[in-house]
Amino acid sequence: MNDLIAKLRAALGAANVLTEGDLTAYEQDWRKRTRGKALAVLRPGNTGEVAAAVKLCAEAGTPIVPQGGNTGLVVGGVPDESGREVVLSLTRMNRVRAVDGGNLTMTVEAGCVLQNLQQAAEDAGYLFPLSLAAEGSCTIGGNLGTNAGGTQVLRYGNTRELCLGLEVVTAQGEVWNGLTGLRKDNTGYDLRDLFIGSEGTLGIITAATMKLYPLPVASLTAWAAVPSMEAAVTLLGLAHKHLGAGLTGFEVMGQFALSLVDRHMPQLRVPLYQDTPYCVLLENSDQESEPHARAAFERLLEAALEDGCATDAVVAENIAQARGLWHIRESIPLAQAQEGLNIKHDISVPVSRIPAFCAETDALLASSIPGVRLVNFGHLGDGNLHYNVQAPVGGDPQAFLRELEERVNVLVYDQVKKFDGSISAEHGVGALKVDKLPDYKSPVALSLMKSLKKALDPQNILNPGRVVSV
Amino acid sequence: MNDLIAKLRAALGAANVLTEGDLTAYEQDWRKRTRGKALAVLRPGNTGEVAAAVKLCAEAGTPIVPQGGNTGLVVGGVPDESGREVVLSLTRMNRVRAVDGGNLTMTVEAGCVLQNLQQAAEDAGYLFPLSLAAEGSCTIGGNLGTNAGGTQVLRYGNTRELCLGLEVVTAQGEVWNGLTGLRKDNTGYDLRDLFIGSEGTLGIITAATMKLYPLPVASLTAWAAVPSMEAAVTLLGLAHKHLGAGLTGFEVMGQFALSLVDRHMPQLRVPLYQDTPYCVLLENSDQESEPHARAAFERLLEAALEDGCATDAVVAENIAQARGLWHIRESIPLAQAQEGLNIKHDISVPVSRIPAFCAETDALLASSIPGVRLVNFGHLGDGNLHYNVQAPVGGDPQAFLRELEERVNVLVYDQVKKFDGSISAEHGVGALKVDKLPDYKSPVALSLMKSLKKALDPQNILNPGRVVSV
Repeated sequence: MNDLIAKLRAALGAANVLTEGDLTAYEQDWRKRTRGKALAVLRPGNTGEVAAAVKLCAEAGTPIVPQGGNTGLVVGGVPDESGREVVLSLTRMNRVRAVDGGNLTMTVEAGCVLQNLQQAAEDAGYLFPLSLAAEGSCTIGGNLGTNAGGTQVLRYGNTRELCLGLEVVTAQGEVWNGLTGLRKDNTGYDLRDLFIGSEGTLGIITAATMKLYPLPVASLTAWAAVPSMEAAVTLLGLAHKHLGAGLTGFEVMGQFALSLVDRHMPQLRVPLYQDTPYCVLLENSDQESEPHARAAFERLLEAALEDGCATDAVVAENIAQARGLWHIRESIPLAQAQEGLNIKHDISVPVSRIPAFCAETDALLASSIPGVRLVNFGHLGDGNLHYNVQAPVGGDPQAFLRELEERVNVLVYDQVKKFDGSISAEHGVGALKVDKLPDYKSPVALSLMKSLKKALDPQNILNPGRVVSV
Repeated sequence: MNDLIAKLRAALGAANVLTEGDLTAYEQDWRKRTRGKALAVLRPGNTGEVAAAVKLCAEAGTPIVPQGGNTGLVVGGVPDESGREVVLSLTRMNRVRAVDGGNLTMTVEAGCVLQNLQQAAEDAGYLFPLSLAAEGSCTIGGNLGTNAGGTQVLRYGNTRELCLGLEVVTAQGEVWNGLTGLRKDNTGYDLRDLFIGSEGTLGIITAATMKLYPLPVASLTAWAAVPSMEAAVTLLGLAHKHLGAGLTGFEVMGQFALSLVDRHMPQLRVPLYQDTPYCVLLENSDQESEPHARAAFERLLEAALEDGCATDAVVAENIAQARGLWHIRESIPLAQAQEGLNIKHDISVPVSRIPAFCAETDALLASSIPGVRLVNFGHLGDGNLHYNVQAPVGGDPQAFLRELEERVNVLVYDQVKKFDGSISAEHGVGALKVDKLPDYKSPVALSLMKSLKKALDPQNILNPGRVVSV
């Protein structure tokens, strides 16, 4: 191993091969669920150095854990406890290589922080629409590796749909330059989408060409009280019809989730939630003007009130009010943490089946665990719920987690399976859910995944044991 | 072989295993470039029968050529001349299995004709936006297998972007049911997009869940004269900015291409083309109203005239006029055929580089082949040109094709490579371009493709020799 470390130091520079000091930032996962031990942390500065590092590790049979901003939620980007794995951090590769306005693309390195990408796009007069809670720390390489979702998927798709081309270092240390800015290219298999979402297990993404969009002229936010989850889905259909591609956000929040925000952050002043089981947050982005956006929103909300799928609604008067409404939505996880320990889910089912899924699963949980409290919220427009489960009032939350987490997970995931859904809508598999997949994914799909892993990484050195076990 | 045929007859019914009579429709490609000979034509009626047929063929080591409407342009869906390959036609599997309006999806079988899908969607009050010249004959399975493009890619993406889930029979005759209607699912590798565009070489698509969109309230078409290809790209940028997601079509047509329509179809009355090198056709789809769409179009065209990137423009007054404009665009290939033999290309380069690509390549061709005539037209919004080359006036077109096709292809493809483009933007590879790929695609990408092919089809029985040679 000392030999490998010496060669890596020669290739990357001694300062970029860390083996001593506090490596917590690289070794501990974001949610602090696990703390691993790295053989070394590698910080290559360019694609050639990534390739050189992979070749050296491959020769030595040393496993590599690629890492971006280390904000992943499924323990996919930190080393295990063996001390055998190196972390390969892409954070030094953080340049915006090019912005091509005429092609509506930008080419960026994997370690570029998402917020910096958004800013670079905006500085050039364009929108890069990927947006999620960790955007100040997460990197585009990590977003691509995990096919991150976020709040604008409804209109712009997941990270996958925002990417036109990749540069990837393979498990053999070869560089594939697929940084095309092409919107159409049918010269063979879709390598790009195979690497996207593979969580660093098939190759290491070092750069990407991403789509840009015209900046909207106006963005408005509305908040509506809805009498049921069925009504929320009806309102979504109306919003699609009225706003078309203008509909850029559609979030649902359960009453109990909002009551936690109200309790722990009273200054946020949650509107309209006290007499209704759910509230919905809508965003409308317009290419024309703010009055035009407002008129369209008002027509939609009038139709919704008339239909009965909304019982009350407000449209933010200005940007500060709009940010305030989004802030309430984004504060739910923190409010939930302040309330105490809880069991988190990141599930999806077809939008049309969400009401039945919730009705059935809510009832099952209530009868199975008396007093259980549901913190149900999420991206309803994508069929994606963070269907979280909070301990009953007064109980011991540690004991709740210890004794019930597995039972609650099985109950919820079995329901997800029954409704043809996914047990990981946007967070990925990592090490956290890899053992769950055999119970919830088709054996044919798993067998295909194993074949692909063996074909592209026969030595099993890229993020081994994450996503798929071979 | 007689044993195989007997087993196939037992599995599919004798009437669905054709070995005699006129099999031209299955054996000859759409453009009549080649005529193969099938061992048999199989017409399974459901997914189980496809799986049974694949298992029997795999046991016998008999290659299978999956086929939909047989409208492909790159000789990817017809048997070779060996008489050893079976054609597996999906056309009997043509049901719309479900339309789920609340989820904005429809689930259809592979053999469903594209036009029937469009109609089923419209009957349910939704838009299925994939649209291309062969839509009356091509099937959605073929569209998926080749990742078909068409005229609405600018807004809705290629077939890949319209698909949420697949049902696939693997090379081992297993059925993967991935017919999820989920917009978010990060539980492993992206098998869906690997099968899409693989032209039947990795698996046989038997059904798919496709996205639906709200029907636009109004669709308007405009036609503009532009003074150069640079101006056309500037107009495209303006159109993105003014219309946002309303911009659903942006086609460019060179003066010579339009002059052929005028010559051979004088009744079509081509507008504005005589004093300008290029015309552009724009489509604007609106969720609000026709007056709103018209006002937005007028603002855009005024801005373009003021900028100088358009010199004249008309907006169709009614649906008949709009259809007339589209009909002119779609008549270019036929007019070109009436003018005589020609060399066709289906290329893409980044939109921003199209003007330089055309200027340079036009000049190279003109100096290399005196009198050569360029029929340049295509989906400029996607960077996709059908950059076709017509023989000089008065020469022998047969001799032109025989003597110059290879030279012209190499000249154009070398230019495409120089501009980081693709030699097959939307038609695929098939048998026609498989030998060209090593010259124009990265060796790393080709090597990855071969690894994937060997992993999923180790016997090499699915459409062997197409897309990738192993």
